[in-house]
Amino acid sequence: MAEKSKKPQKFRARLPRGLEDRSPAAIAATRQMVEKIREVYERYGFEPVETPAMEYTDALGKFLPDQDRPNEGVFSFQDDDEQWISLRYDLTAPLARYVAENFDALPKPYRSYRFGYVFRNEKPGPGRFRQFMQFDADTVGSASPAADAEMCMMAADTMEALGIPRGSYVVKVNNRKVLDGVMEALKITEPKQKLSVLRALDKLDKFEWPEVQKLLGAGRRDESGDFTVGANLNPLQIEQIGAMIKAWESTKLRPSNAFRPDLFDGVIEGDAPESLKLGLSELGSINDLVYSSGYGQDRICIDLSVVRGLEYYTGPVYEVELTLETKDEKGRPVRFGSVGGGGRYDGLVSRFRGEPVPATGFSIGVSRLQAALTMLGKLDTRADFGPVVVTVFDRDRVADYQKMVAQLRNANIRAELYLGNPKNMGNQLKYADRRNSPCVIIQGSDEKARGEIQIKDLIDGAKAAAAIASNQEWRETRPAQFSCAEGDIVAKVREVLARHDVKWN
Amino acid sequence: MAEKSKKPQKFRARLPRGLEDRSPAAIAATRQMVEKIREVYERYGFEPVETPAMEYTDALGKFLPDQDRPNEGVFSFQDDDEQWISLRYDLTAPLARYVAENFDALPKPYRSYRFGYVFRNEKPGPGRFRQFMQFDADTVGSASPAADAEMCMMAADTMEALGIPRGSYVVKVNNRKVLDGVMEALKITEPKQKLSVLRALDKLDKFEWPEVQKLLGAGRRDESGDFTVGANLNPLQIEQIGAMIKAWESTKLRPSNAFRPDLFDGVIEGDAPESLKLGLSELGSINDLVYSSGYGQDRICIDLSVVRGLEYYTGPVYEVELTLETKDEKGRPVRFGSVGGGGRYDGLVSRFRGEPVPATGFSIGVSRLQAALTMLGKLDTRADFGPVVVTVFDRDRVADYQKMVAQLRNANIRAELYLGNPKNMGNQLKYADRRNSPCVIIQGSDEKARGEIQIKDLIDGAKAAAAIASNQEWRETRPAQFSCAEGDIVAKVREVLARHDVKWN
Repeated sequence: MAEKSKKPQKFRARLPRGLEDRSPAAIAATRQMVEKIREVYERYGFEPVETPAMEYTDALGKFLPDQDRPNEGVFSFQDDDEQWISLRYDLTAPLARYVAENFDALPKPYRSYRFGYVFRNEKPGPGRFRQFMQFDADTVGSASPAADAEMCMMAADTMEALGIPRGSYVVKVNNRKVLDGVMEALKITEPKQKLSVLRALDKLDKFEWPEVQKLLGAGRRDESGDFTVGANLNPLQIEQIGAMIKAWESTKLRPSNAFRPDLFDGVIEGDAPESLKLGLSELGSINDLVYSSGYGQDRICIDLSVVRGLEYYTGPVYEVELTLETKDEKGRPVRFGSVGGGGRYDGLVSRFRGEPVPATGFSIGVSRLQAALTMLGKLDTRADFGPVVVTVFDRDRVADYQKMVAQLRNANIRAELYLGNPKNMGNQLKYADRRNSPCVIIQGSDEKARGEIQIKDLIDGAKAAAAIASNQEWRETRPAQFSCAEGDIVAKVREVLARHDVKWN
Repeated sequence: MAEKSKKPQKFRARLPRGLEDRSPAAIAATRQMVEKIREVYERYGFEPVETPAMEYTDALGKFLPDQDRPNEGVFSFQDDDEQWISLRYDLTAPLARYVAENFDALPKPYRSYRFGYVFRNEKPGPGRFRQFMQFDADTVGSASPAADAEMCMMAADTMEALGIPRGSYVVKVNNRKVLDGVMEALKITEPKQKLSVLRALDKLDKFEWPEVQKLLGAGRRDESGDFTVGANLNPLQIEQIGAMIKAWESTKLRPSNAFRPDLFDGVIEGDAPESLKLGLSELGSINDLVYSSGYGQDRICIDLSVVRGLEYYTGPVYEVELTLETKDEKGRPVRFGSVGGGGRYDGLVSRFRGEPVPATGFSIGVSRLQAALTMLGKLDTRADFGPVVVTVFDRDRVADYQKMVAQLRNANIRAELYLGNPKNMGNQLKYADRRNSPCVIIQGSDEKARGEIQIKDLIDGAKAAAAIASNQEWRETRPAQFSCAEGDIVAKVREVLARHDVKWN
């Protein structure tokens, strides 16, 4: 921020931490993305619905993971009737409220999509904002694994619609029931220990098994010397988890369709708990459905390391990962990781209805995915050409110049009058350069007397300038500038735009 | 809301007061509107910029008019560093912050546009929401009346782009300097009295002069018997205001270009104050500029009754009014009135910069204008056709049905699998009707054995149903249902869609 002025300033202009202003290129990129996602979701039969940015705090529930601040991650204020209202922290809790409130009026199963900003009252950090955009789809009223399978296929199709080639993304699917069942089979009941086990499993895509083994046991010291306390499982428990992971990993031999619900038969001791059997059976259905619709393991695969933080999931959970690597400005490799995910949340609508209402949903982190697509060069972020600038040569004739602008605009050409101080033509040309204008219009008294205007082609002009050595040569040749009759302004400007392939409406 | 369940409900699903959920038709209408407005603004050379939904409270300032609640119309909360943050109540104050913070990096004059939700912590009422959408354009860094004239022309063009015919809207222009100058000339200095005078002038488009005269004097009793206390001007002051209004009204003889800055010469006693002269001169420039660009008084006209509530205006102010009338559900006439407005706010950026920064801007109340356009039938709010529904006849063959859905989607046809309980084909057809599906696909075991599918055309079916008298006739003729080979599913569905003119991608 420039602080040149020496006068006292009453207020400092500053954005609160963790928020961002958005440039024309970023706005255009979001529009492109949103349109492409919308197209896929519409094709899947989903219909739009929009809820406001705020809800009663108790309707949102307390489902955010890992909160280390007292207000638990949400922005809240008290209404004048003493009720607490919060800004939405995701698009799922408001949808649950919407469906519950309008239950009888909606077709069921109810497929819907929506996008918008969500707000997290968290410590901001690099790439971590307090306002960001999500694009969600949900199916409420179907307990069928086919609804979950559909979400995964839609996620895969969306990635490809956004220009991410097959093989550069993967939709990973797991099931909370499987995780719960494993805990039950191994008699892990203490909530803190459960959480440590989940956190260790979550590392399976980062670490080799021996490292994960340490996290399941006493703990692990990393290269920097930091120690992570482990889950303190006993050797037998760790061995059984190892055997399960081995059984699962053997199914990942691509491109076969090798996932089977009997995966752990003979691997764990004794009878498998019901939730484990059910969870594996659901994963088997999802696997069969997506496979028969042409989605192989290179696009959607069962992955027992997927945990997902949100508390409200009750069944299948899924996560979309970009498997591409790129380099950051300093040449270091960057892996993008998760750009979206979701799962089944059968309890979220039910808590309003007092009756079971199955639901499953998927959320794309638009802001996060946009950052990835931008780094990968998948979004067109070239600046558009600016407007044609009609300059003010003679300040008494602003109305004439304004009329030229109106003529151009009426012909659907982006155009504007120079509105700054017109005393200096050099400043006007600098302004036009800064706006990336394709050409400027000039009319002095000589041209006016002849009924003519001058058109200066700034694109050709810039090329010529690069080739011309001296100011004198420039003045003598006046490259890329020509005159024409006043009445030809639209036709001649169109010629310039066409020559440089400038879009106009 | 349905409250059939007898089980205890933990939470009631309810939207806070003054907020609304938005339907597919409303969302589609907003998209149409936003695209059309954007097109006009882009043509005028404006570029997009977006700021977040919240700002530091002190950066927003206190500019909302007529606040009768203690928190002055904004939603605020304290950050963990004790600083107060508020949701934006308009898009102008955040723009001022943005421009001040990025002053040196921006081209000047800086033309920009943005749209988004704004939030008012007000008592909600009919048609008065606490979250609504605005679409703004601003030019920062130009003191020229040409910048104000441009806003007015852009407003007029936007109304026509949205389908409002010429003659059914008008952009009214006034100048705060003129209002201030009139006060000065009449020696009205007391702030409360000034406000009462402004409120009386604001009624000029509703009441005849004798009624306004009462409001300028002791007060006015309306038909219901309610008494409004007047501004208590003396007869001489009222007479002079009357003379000025008469002088102004004589300029409204359309379609001439009759506004002159010397309007009040000989009308007011003694020398006119500087601010009055300056204000009238600016209005004269705006009038000449728009007139020479082809905008007659039927589109943009000087109107001394325009007041505009916001405190931050310092010069020209404008208001867009729909002059159409329509009838409400009960047949009563409804006049839409103001759907947008704006003005010059030279102090808003300056208070950050400590140096003069002229600025002018215009805001469309998208939500309000959408309500008007919807009532006028100017927005296409017909429901789109829903997806093709592939029914589940045999629940063991969900994977086969899912594959059909994938085939249709791959051909860019909106399609979905029925995800509810498949036990009853009648329910599946009812669901398809409710989704407004053009056709459904059915494959029972007989069809499967023959390698065929059934396609049921729901649009023709509905027509046929209206013409068929008995259930028996229906069963015998089975109108609008035909079978085809499995492999022809895409081609045959396309034929049905084409026959009914259903859009697909």
